[in-house]
Amino acid sequence: MANLMSFITLICFLSLSRRPAFAADTPEGSSLRTYIVHVERPDGEERTADQSEDLESWYRSFLPPSTRSSNEADERMLYSYRSVFKGFAARLSPDEVKDVEKKEGFVYARPEKILPLHTTNSPRFLGLNQNTGFWNSSNYGRGVIIGVLDGGIFHQHPSFSDDGMPRPPAKWKGKCELNTTRCNNKIIGARYLLRFGEPNLIDNDGHGTHCAGTAAGNFVRGANVLGVANGTAAGIAPHAHLAMYKVCDVACPESSILAGIDTAVEDGVDVLSISIGSGRDNFARDFAAIGAFGAMEKGVFVSCSAGNSGPFSSTLSNQAPWVLTVGASTTDRKTRATAVLGNNQQFHGGSAFQPNNFRPTMLPLVYAGTVNTGDPSARFCSERSLNGTNIRGKIVLCDFGGGVSRIEKGEAIRSAGGAAMILVNSEAIANTTLAEAHVIPATHVSYADGLRIKAYISSVTAPIATIRFDGTVFGDNRAPVVAAFSSRGPNSLSPGILKPDILGPGVDVLAAWHIPLDNNTNTNLRFNMISGTSMSCPHLSGVAALLKSAHPNWSPAAIKSAIMTTADVVNHAQNIIEDERFLPAGIFATGAGHVNPSRANDPGLIYDIRPQDYIPYLCGLNYTNREVGYILQRQVNCSEVSHIPEAQLNYPTFTLTFAPASTPQVYTRTVTNVGDPISSYSLEIVPPPGINVRVDPTTLNFTRANQQMQYRVTFTRLASAQSGEVVQGFLRWTSSKHSVRSRIAVILQ
Amino acid sequence: MANLMSFITLICFLSLSRRPAFAADTPEGSSLRTYIVHVERPDGEERTADQSEDLESWYRSFLPPSTRSSNEADERMLYSYRSVFKGFAARLSPDEVKDVEKKEGFVYARPEKILPLHTTNSPRFLGLNQNTGFWNSSNYGRGVIIGVLDGGIFHQHPSFSDDGMPRPPAKWKGKCELNTTRCNNKIIGARYLLRFGEPNLIDNDGHGTHCAGTAAGNFVRGANVLGVANGTAAGIAPHAHLAMYKVCDVACPESSILAGIDTAVEDGVDVLSISIGSGRDNFARDFAAIGAFGAMEKGVFVSCSAGNSGPFSSTLSNQAPWVLTVGASTTDRKTRATAVLGNNQQFHGGSAFQPNNFRPTMLPLVYAGTVNTGDPSARFCSERSLNGTNIRGKIVLCDFGGGVSRIEKGEAIRSAGGAAMILVNSEAIANTTLAEAHVIPATHVSYADGLRIKAYISSVTAPIATIRFDGTVFGDNRAPVVAAFSSRGPNSLSPGILKPDILGPGVDVLAAWHIPLDNNTNTNLRFNMISGTSMSCPHLSGVAALLKSAHPNWSPAAIKSAIMTTADVVNHAQNIIEDERFLPAGIFATGAGHVNPSRANDPGLIYDIRPQDYIPYLCGLNYTNREVGYILQRQVNCSEVSHIPEAQLNYPTFTLTFAPASTPQVYTRTVTNVGDPISSYSLEIVPPPGINVRVDPTTLNFTRANQQMQYRVTFTRLASAQSGEVVQGFLRWTSSKHSVRSRIAVILQ
Repeated sequence: MANLMSFITLICFLSLSRRPAFAADTPEGSSLRTYIVHVERPDGEERTADQSEDLESWYRSFLPPSTRSSNEADERMLYSYRSVFKGFAARLSPDEVKDVEKKEGFVYARPEKILPLHTTNSPRFLGLNQNTGFWNSSNYGRGVIIGVLDGGIFHQHPSFSDDGMPRPPAKWKGKCELNTTRCNNKIIGARYLLRFGEPNLIDNDGHGTHCAGTAAGNFVRGANVLGVANGTAAGIAPHAHLAMYKVCDVACPESSILAGIDTAVEDGVDVLSISIGSGRDNFARDFAAIGAFGAMEKGVFVSCSAGNSGPFSSTLSNQAPWVLTVGASTTDRKTRATAVLGNNQQFHGGSAFQPNNFRPTMLPLVYAGTVNTGDPSARFCSERSLNGTNIRGKIVLCDFGGGVSRIEKGEAIRSAGGAAMILVNSEAIANTTLAEAHVIPATHVSYADGLRIKAYISSVTAPIATIRFDGTVFGDNRAPVVAAFSSRGPNSLSPGILKPDILGPGVDVLAAWHIPLDNNTNTNLRFNMISGTSMSCPHLSGVAALLKSAHPNWSPAAIKSAIMTTADVVNHAQNIIEDERFLPAGIFATGAGHVNPSRANDPGLIYDIRPQDYIPYLCGLNYTNREVGYILQRQVNCSEVSHIPEAQLNYPTFTLTFAPASTPQVYTRTVTNVGDPISSYSLEIVPPPGINVRVDPTTLNFTRANQQMQYRVTFTRLASAQSGEVVQGFLRWTSSKHSVRSRIAVILQ
Repeated sequence: MANLMSFITLICFLSLSRRPAFAADTPEGSSLRTYIVHVERPDGEERTADQSEDLESWYRSFLPPSTRSSNEADERMLYSYRSVFKGFAARLSPDEVKDVEKKEGFVYARPEKILPLHTTNSPRFLGLNQNTGFWNSSNYGRGVIIGVLDGGIFHQHPSFSDDGMPRPPAKWKGKCELNTTRCNNKIIGARYLLRFGEPNLIDNDGHGTHCAGTAAGNFVRGANVLGVANGTAAGIAPHAHLAMYKVCDVACPESSILAGIDTAVEDGVDVLSISIGSGRDNFARDFAAIGAFGAMEKGVFVSCSAGNSGPFSSTLSNQAPWVLTVGASTTDRKTRATAVLGNNQQFHGGSAFQPNNFRPTMLPLVYAGTVNTGDPSARFCSERSLNGTNIRGKIVLCDFGGGVSRIEKGEAIRSAGGAAMILVNSEAIANTTLAEAHVIPATHVSYADGLRIKAYISSVTAPIATIRFDGTVFGDNRAPVVAAFSSRGPNSLSPGILKPDILGPGVDVLAAWHIPLDNNTNTNLRFNMISGTSMSCPHLSGVAALLKSAHPNWSPAAIKSAIMTTADVVNHAQNIIEDERFLPAGIFATGAGHVNPSRANDPGLIYDIRPQDYIPYLCGLNYTNREVGYILQRQVNCSEVSHIPEAQLNYPTFTLTFAPASTPQVYTRTVTNVGDPISSYSLEIVPPPGINVRVDPTTLNFTRANQQMQYRVTFTRLASAQSGEVVQGFLRWTSSKHSVRSRIAVILQ
């Protein structure tokens, strides 16, 4: 539970204000818990999904006799999985589990974990423009279905109108459950996959609606937040279909996530968008990873959020090589609010709430840490901590964190009569400031600017300040900047696979919203700006949908490769992409770089991976036969397959760990020609400092479409290598039209 | 020895390139070591300094009988101290020391330590202008004698001409020893106080000449370094007299330092300038501190360098409250060299060497860490590490540190045929870049800019760059910035006394130099730019001399108080003074702030301390009677005096440590009116966050000159105080003319 709380707490800070966690593992105080049970036909016999009656009764045969028939079985059996997992989820007592274990065909039973959810500027920022280019050539994602696993959807939102949308494709088996949600040609499915509370497909907190709108919201003119950031809102694949699988309320039970993936694959989605923090367990013990493997096997592309636990190392969620792991970065749009001090210093910050009735006159400025000298949490502007203090009519400076959401800090100031808020980042968060829908005039400034403001307060007896609201400002050439909260590698479960894979917009993302904001504007709010890798994930889901529409035969790995080898490594000023400190970002922050959808549409070469290629990879990770079997959902014997080192997987990046004085490492890669049939590529290498990189051959001459060629790379650690450092470089195949970059990360032990 | 080496190493990096340390504690491999021996007349009888024959023979009576007469005694007895210390320094074997201990009057004998030395823009920067203001009213320091303890002086330098200088005052007893140095009315004394090597008063490395020139160099028109930073050079007190006490060669034996102080006080100096790193021992075991106490007792002001071990905490030298401890900061002058990359990024750095024959065309750019893959020290451009590599005609990027001085890095590149150097700071050094006399075209850039240049190198296959030399640039409004290398508090020996006391210019200081620089310019070099707290210390020695000239009756503590209570806490842009990270500097980096000489000349009120006030202070530090006696050079019985907490000393700042839930701390202060006889002061308080500050009374009405008044301050820790933080504030007495600030530092445990 401690783990869950800390996950959810982070989310509170970094993406959304959420209600307290509920005790989902003991839902009604009983001793029953939800177990996910993996089973196997004793005869190894395979059944197809449409033999569902048969499957259901076989699953039921594992339940305790007393519960096997009657209504109780319905209550105990939560989900019967069919597509991506052999087994079911059921509520069982520990003694009952012991009985289940004795049945023939039983493989394992594990209590489920509860996972957290991890925020439409941005088509323009990503180079997507109406009537031209990739949006045009991909038909805006037409014909592709994006399944969103999240907390529900407010289907009446204008982003989900089906203007200009075709009917769902014939293969579609999904539907809109419950009477509360009506399907149209945009939202073609909505299913409720929770087993507690009042069934309801609307999301309580806006997260699902926002994510769905980001991936595939239709065009909405005049979208804005409280009057700012005005423009036409659209998802990344505005003509793709959407199906919502509600697997989260306050948090997301693993059994429901697995049910969501299982159902979506069976329904026929093409892309899955999962902005949920999976556990950081071994892939064989992670039901989201197991489900995603099944989806990938059936050709479904899975995009996941990297997590909001940055900027610290090894903080990633969703690290499996068969999913796309998406970090978060800024766009060039700011909704600016500027703190102006009595000494005329000015500090740019952010706020979505841009009051038009706030007169920028100088007001007394106080640091919350000094106004209630009896409460150490006052500096964080915690609830009630400022009541009874003398802040009436003043601007109050609050510190980030302390278990208090940013919106709540403003509420605490408002309730104590304060006039406005300056919110100051912690040192780690540095320059990542957010524009949010505060309930009072506010600005969120950087750590360094916060120190300067505090120093001003400590240097005069009567500090004064005001906030100037500058509205929407475009053209930040520093963008994209990696957000402080974006989780960082290296990959803790498979250090030979670079994660995150890619960066997408995740800061101040404007998308569909249906929950009233609690401030004094009368704007008819239909959009909101929120931030998190939860928001960057659906951007990439949308990009994958566009690619799927343009290249229906590409495998999930091919789509990933196209996205990764064409990513941008420089910002709009043509400098190396920076992190929250405004220093060049490390490779474990950026992965392959920042998504460039139009270039991804024409990558030239792809690094493909077939599902069976993961068997030698998993065996090479020293997973047991059993563990590999759990993931593949069939029996595997590692002694019969070659084991490969992780970095030998045909991944579009290279990640190596080198001990001192270790021998050279040799890997091969296979590239498939998806550009002009006759094309010739030559090699460029920028080796990581301390590493020699040799490639053979150094030219690749293709003569036909889909032709595959191999090359071999030898990495050698040099005496000049500095132990303890992470170094990076790349190799790139270039033709007259294409540039196919594989970034190289090396951990020098 | 390890400690000494690390001291000297730091100096190598941060202020001067010096020769390796010598084993001074076993000078000729014998078992004889230099002991400093403290003795006391058995009858407590006091003798005056002019009874020197008597004193000398009494000291000799402590030597082993075999050495007591004859030439050997001369060889064994190194120094007979007279003014500030009762005792002598002698070379003794351990067995001989045991005999000495048996003599009546023996107090203690301790083997001496060897201390390191710790660079004239800046009168203008400090607001000192010819013919007007403070320089005028203080007569440029006329009649005041500054004694410099250092490595010698090149007396022929034009900075030491006696144009316009009066004769030495009648009290002066000093002289120029050795035939090599001729006294004039500027240099009125030069003494050799080392007991090894060839006696010689010229400094071998430029340090002494530079420091003396900074404190009191005469006006020299057309001063420049290699043609740049052109202007009229002058010391801070250009008409003060100078006396050099050569106590250092490569390093500085404690016995010589004590001899230098002892002799200087006896000669009649008014101010002592000591840019030497004292040990960090208990004051009773630190002969520099003991000597400085004696000097202070006799009215001599002692200015010391804070040390070059920043930016890390608790790294100060010279922490005694009876000396002024001087940190280092930048001035608004830069000698700029700009790195220009192939992608057009530009990064401003520094170089004193501004070649006029370097054509800024793009050259190949390489990181030294990648050119010799067999040598891990190549990235630091260590000697010979680049030989045989392919750097001919290229710009080489070198990392700071690695035991290689900055000048040496350029030498390594030159010897391997490289064209130019970009020198990159380490992370800790951040934005502190130096303009030095490199031997090839070079620029020294910040850590962040270095990361950006490395990122550029890692992003293209053929990186290119050039260096543009921009010459002397004035007007950096960020100045003064605390230098990264400037040592930081808190005070490890007396945490209740804020140290450093003050900041003065210590980066790229232009002053007298006599050693040829090894590059291809033909400029007649008479000045050089070097950096260190060694350079900021003589600035304050000069300021003290000006104050002494204007206020001959002020005590050393009064001069300190005047300097500290009037210091600037904001930079030229009127923002809080920043540190090497360009963030507001903490109080343990700045002390009272940056010296403002003209304001110090008219402080209004002073916080005076009489020598005897240190007795209750030292007893309060829990020093034994013996230890207090060692410092005072007479017997003290702490049981007969009140013990006061450190912060009760009448210091012009407040430094407190508060444990959680501890009781209030109450201190009194006594201020002396040195402004208009009838004057009225009111109080302003900016309390440190988490601390309540109450003062009684809150107005002070003076009716006569030199009237003293007391006030009482009560500090209370509030519940809102954040344990683990250092917080700061101030209290300030203001009249219609004056503003007397006492900064407050609180360590919250």
